[in-house]
Amino acid sequence: MATDLTGLPTLDDVRAAAARIAPFVHRTPLMSRASLSESLGCEVVFKCENLQRVGAFKARGACNAVFALDGPEAGRGVATHSSGNHGAALALAAARRGIPAWVVVPDNAPRCKRESVARYGATVVSCRPGLANREARLAEVVAETGARVVHPYDDDLVIAGQGTAALEMLEERPDLDVILAPVGGGGLLSGTAIVARGLGETTRVIGVEPARADDTYRSFKQGKRVGNDAPDTVADGLRASVGVRNFRAIRALVDDIVTVEEQEFVAAMWLLLERLKLLVEPSAGVPLAALTAGRLDLRGQRVGVILTGGNVDMEALPGLLELAEEPPSPVPVVT
Amino acid sequence: MATDLTGLPTLDDVRAAAARIAPFVHRTPLMSRASLSESLGCEVVFKCENLQRVGAFKARGACNAVFALDGPEAGRGVATHSSGNHGAALALAAARRGIPAWVVVPDNAPRCKRESVARYGATVVSCRPGLANREARLAEVVAETGARVVHPYDDDLVIAGQGTAALEMLEERPDLDVILAPVGGGGLLSGTAIVARGLGETTRVIGVEPARADDTYRSFKQGKRVGNDAPDTVADGLRASVGVRNFRAIRALVDDIVTVEEQEFVAAMWLLLERLKLLVEPSAGVPLAALTAGRLDLRGQRVGVILTGGNVDMEALPGLLELAEEPPSPVPVVT
Repeated sequence: MATDLTGLPTLDDVRAAAARIAPFVHRTPLMSRASLSESLGCEVVFKCENLQRVGAFKARGACNAVFALDGPEAGRGVATHSSGNHGAALALAAARRGIPAWVVVPDNAPRCKRESVARYGATVVSCRPGLANREARLAEVVAETGARVVHPYDDDLVIAGQGTAALEMLEERPDLDVILAPVGGGGLLSGTAIVARGLGETTRVIGVEPARADDTYRSFKQGKRVGNDAPDTVADGLRASVGVRNFRAIRALVDDIVTVEEQEFVAAMWLLLERLKLLVEPSAGVPLAALTAGRLDLRGQRVGVILTGGNVDMEALPGLLELAEEPPSPVPVVT
Repeated sequence: MATDLTGLPTLDDVRAAAARIAPFVHRTPLMSRASLSESLGCEVVFKCENLQRVGAFKARGACNAVFALDGPEAGRGVATHSSGNHGAALALAAARRGIPAWVVVPDNAPRCKRESVARYGATVVSCRPGLANREARLAEVVAETGARVVHPYDDDLVIAGQGTAALEMLEERPDLDVILAPVGGGGLLSGTAIVARGLGETTRVIGVEPARADDTYRSFKQGKRVGNDAPDTVADGLRASVGVRNFRAIRALVDDIVTVEEQEFVAAMWLLLERLKLLVEPSAGVPLAALTAGRLDLRGQRVGVILTGGNVDMEALPGLLELAEEPPSPVPVVT
């Protein structure tokens, strides 16, 4: 395993981020259900970032990046491309700082995510799906405006900001044996691994990725970063390819990456709705699916799961219910 | 307004209940969303009883009733009729005390609620819908078993137990101007009013009822208890007619009762899912609907809303989405 961490964010950077963003983000609750843990054979604790501002952990990284800018740079505004949550988060952060923001959003992003970007006063710039299209459109925006790009994941300040979710989790539950986080571009997973390893060797970090957007899994197994040409997953938050900085940290610090199928993580999403009464977006069902679909055997362990976001178009819910391979467990008991 | 409270539970009874049930129920969180409060023009704080054990506040009253029984009486077991949540709650309480329980459940109760009764080891006894059918079947069960009946709402210990939700709420937020609670049989509303009035005159209590099961509203306005012949509402938790003890307390202590239409409270249910990321059952959308549908003008006030439960059949969700008159607000932003 590579261990060259030169230039990557450190635990101290995450702690600095936590102090910087504290006025602007929620300290989200940890939740658990004894009956769910019992049926899974391990104690599962959920970090509820679906209850975070803008409905996703992305508020953390965006606020850290925006509030770390010096005055003159901030004044020219910020810009990014995003399937939605990072865009809304950057819009929120910019609004709080009183600076303009431009967000390039692919046409296939959920309506609710596009609209929440606009709601915070950012300018929404449409583009066709795909990383190349997103980046080309963003370059045009920057050329026109002079805005500072805040990348959705391949950015040290963003990585440090996303790491604050795991920092809070381990402050409350330092006894966790393992943390499961989904991986798209790798901002959350790299930040989580930096925190867990920085605090000691006791908590392992495992990434979980949709099989239909499995570039990080393949990159991790091959030891080199490979692309994600045409990700075809309903986990709209996880269609991105892993970033350069993110992959360096993931390769060095993450213990394993596993993949799950579409119907498996959508079923996990419904399980969370039934049993925890919490709405999460499909992407956020991905790590739990590694347990419910038997991709990981963590029996007897204490498992932290980051519920990354809760932004779902209500109109999409019936289709997602159909997608779940098995009808969800009929027992909605909270114990 | 009648003020004869002789024989009804008091604030002290609710405090005794709180101490008795503390080992068996959750202290549920209060949640709020600044953006939702802003759009409603009043500060709204939600008491999340959908996160309570068995997914509903009913765990409170049932535990209080079961653990107050003396040993010989408890030994013969307990029985009740219930559209679901009280049945599951009684089953939980009986299981914790190690005594048998029989629950009469109408055929039209949600599947998830029937199954959660059985899950705790209680015996499910089916009957046709309607209060008369429920009571007749229960009488048969009691004749056969000698079990002690724990009425779902018209019972002093149950009323005192349900009051503990408002007690917790007002301990954390004594500054609330008003508490909104749904009303079916009136267990929660009467317990809430006993607490609010017992603690002083500063917090008003308003009941909200489905217009299609509006017996409490009509009883309150006419000053005498009238029945609810054929309640035809999707709010399955609120089909019962107000109880004798409950109506005495409600008439004496509740400030007002208003009604809301089906599509209004189902829309409120969806709003809670989108904005708070919380799943509530249709009944639990009823009090918020009084605000969103403009039945109450509480602008500028601090409003506590009890989210009574979260047990919904997943298969019923698409139909409930269609029922909402207006498409829910597309903006899912958590701020």
